[in-house]
Amino acid sequence: MTFEDQQTAATPVHADPFDLTRARFALPPDIRYFDGNSLGPLPKAVQTQVYVSTTHEWGEGLIRSWQDARWNTLPQRVGERIGRLIGAAPGQVVACDSTSVNLFKVLTAAVRLRPGRRLIVTDAASFPTDLYIAGEVARLMGLEIVNVPVSEMSEVLGEQVAVVLLCHVDYRTSEIYDLAGITRAAHDAGALLVADLSHSAGALPCNLDASGVDFAVGCGYKYLNGGPGAPAFLYAAARHIPNCEQPLAGWFGHATPFDFTGAYAPAPGIERFLCGTNQVIALSVLLRALDVFDDVSIEDARTRSLELTTRFISAVEARLVRHGFVIASPSEATRRGSHVSLRHPKGYAIMQELARRGVIGDFRMPDFMRFGFAPLFNTMEDTDHLVDEIDRIMEERAWDKAQYAQRRDFT
Amino acid sequence: MTFEDQQTAATPVHADPFDLTRARFALPPDIRYFDGNSLGPLPKAVQTQVYVSTTHEWGEGLIRSWQDARWNTLPQRVGERIGRLIGAAPGQVVACDSTSVNLFKVLTAAVRLRPGRRLIVTDAASFPTDLYIAGEVARLMGLEIVNVPVSEMSEVLGEQVAVVLLCHVDYRTSEIYDLAGITRAAHDAGALLVADLSHSAGALPCNLDASGVDFAVGCGYKYLNGGPGAPAFLYAAARHIPNCEQPLAGWFGHATPFDFTGAYAPAPGIERFLCGTNQVIALSVLLRALDVFDDVSIEDARTRSLELTTRFISAVEARLVRHGFVIASPSEATRRGSHVSLRHPKGYAIMQELARRGVIGDFRMPDFMRFGFAPLFNTMEDTDHLVDEIDRIMEERAWDKAQYAQRRDFT
Repeated sequence: MTFEDQQTAATPVHADPFDLTRARFALPPDIRYFDGNSLGPLPKAVQTQVYVSTTHEWGEGLIRSWQDARWNTLPQRVGERIGRLIGAAPGQVVACDSTSVNLFKVLTAAVRLRPGRRLIVTDAASFPTDLYIAGEVARLMGLEIVNVPVSEMSEVLGEQVAVVLLCHVDYRTSEIYDLAGITRAAHDAGALLVADLSHSAGALPCNLDASGVDFAVGCGYKYLNGGPGAPAFLYAAARHIPNCEQPLAGWFGHATPFDFTGAYAPAPGIERFLCGTNQVIALSVLLRALDVFDDVSIEDARTRSLELTTRFISAVEARLVRHGFVIASPSEATRRGSHVSLRHPKGYAIMQELARRGVIGDFRMPDFMRFGFAPLFNTMEDTDHLVDEIDRIMEERAWDKAQYAQRRDFT
Repeated sequence: MTFEDQQTAATPVHADPFDLTRARFALPPDIRYFDGNSLGPLPKAVQTQVYVSTTHEWGEGLIRSWQDARWNTLPQRVGERIGRLIGAAPGQVVACDSTSVNLFKVLTAAVRLRPGRRLIVTDAASFPTDLYIAGEVARLMGLEIVNVPVSEMSEVLGEQVAVVLLCHVDYRTSEIYDLAGITRAAHDAGALLVADLSHSAGALPCNLDASGVDFAVGCGYKYLNGGPGAPAFLYAAARHIPNCEQPLAGWFGHATPFDFTGAYAPAPGIERFLCGTNQVIALSVLLRALDVFDDVSIEDARTRSLELTTRFISAVEARLVRHGFVIASPSEATRRGSHVSLRHPKGYAIMQELARRGVIGDFRMPDFMRFGFAPLFNTMEDTDHLVDEIDRIMEERAWDKAQYAQRRDFT
């Protein structure tokens, strides 16, 4: 046998693509990790990338690497890769800044596209930073916020509404909202739709272009595995870009930043949403992390995610409900994102005891135990182990330990 | 001799502390680097730090590292270290976001502290991104920008001025402006002073507290050596912090972010200027990079910087003025920052030819050749070599090559 023959022979005919994606992560052997929805694990390729970015590009290339290592186009290159995962044709996504900062940019730009309208509609159950930022945009632009549950949004839409701000997947319950339907309703009222994809990008299809979404933002460190505090991303529909005026008009969003002119002239494309100097190392890490998605389509990832969450929910119903757990996530698969939340009065202590046993999820006030089922690395066997461990903790009352009285925040 | 005796014997009695700081950088042996004012070189300790931050903290610690590796306090810890370099007592500096984003925060907060006043005064020669951001703040807040040369600022100060925005050191000419004097003039008119320290922090004392400066921002990747696109920093004087309302009110600036409440309540301290999730890897790199300053005081760094720039200017006068170079930086040492700019009609091509010969500075439109003399690593011998090489290029007319006709932007 030649070397090539041996390699071919060693590859199973129907290799599970998720065995391959899982093998791309540096997961600690003693940990079952159900928090990829909060902080994705380390892709092995990043270990090499940080060496290349620091020792080679920065250390040896120095300032020359802005061209030679293509630092100058990192936001766009990362943006293109993320665009493929969220259903955006090229030229509409950049990676930069944080989700909060990017939301400030697109919300302000959207409000400016709807002059004379004085309302921003959102759900009070949105991720809090979205509410805070929307409040600041409203304050600066002289608008008001209307908080209604997503189910009632269509009732309040009218000619005074400039923008609807929607979290695609609820960070606590995991409920998926109907991006296309709500966008249609917003458009029917003459309003624009801004979506936060933090809990959907990388875990399920978002179909931004097909849904007619106007603007979107999302997180780089959850299902995209870009590392703690990774740059976020920002989408603006091509039809809006030429008319967008975003308020964080820094030099990297300028048409010709190296002419150093005193007057701001936005870049013609999506780059106009950039602000300060590219976060080179962090963007390089995120770019490399996205390689993991080369092996699978987002549709396949969605299928896998549903297999995991469905298996978990079935087991919870069969074995954990008797301990007082309430399933806070939709039972209907099509309405469920890639995490599952359970509620329990002892939820915080149970999560701490699970972590002590090497099973990591997270906790959200007041009593949400969140378990992320990241399709790229979580396995069926992980899922079974999780249920076994919760069951054991409840049988042993192992949550009833003094050290769990004081909350210790995760992120 | 014992081992300790040998070590003592091997250390020169009057070791130059700047030999020690230079040894902390991974400088390519074939390069003379005069662009530390644009992108500081790689501190060797960062090479280990990125391994620790990724493989150990992120890879093995996962979400737990928010507490265990103290990711949650990185902006404050980096801020304290920078505070020492810029004359700020503890509790007034955080590191986060970009300089442009931070300027947006502090300018807006400052304007809100001076309600009813309708002018922002700045110099049209400020770094362009500062002008762009000031323009956006003015637009959102209903103010106007007044552009006057720094020398004429005191003449326009009056009861309509809310804020004076000043670049401490001019990015082209290297002129240092009188931070204390202009702050006093601003205060006399009832206005607040916002300073951009991008071209001074880490190269010369800024004395923020002593000068009465109200707010400041600055860059992490120039003289602080935090790497390409490093997090920037932000200073707010302690007397203002409790009353500051900054517009990028993200969850990391909230008093209790992990309560996930819908209403924004700012953190009591300087943390209220944070917005999104901490940029962990980049902040860890910047924190480690600042170790280089452990060996020297900022006053000693300033002395060294002046020795370098004075030596360069003397040599330019003696040997390069005859080739048509004009020194664009102040000849008076106390008015000169840590870079020196020469102007020459062939400046762009000369810089390119210098780079080809391993001597790196940068170019700023229309004809500024900038040379940074970073006190922590540039040497007298570097300086002499630079002058020799420019002289040779002019003698040989080596700038007159076809490939230099097209500009290639550095950053």
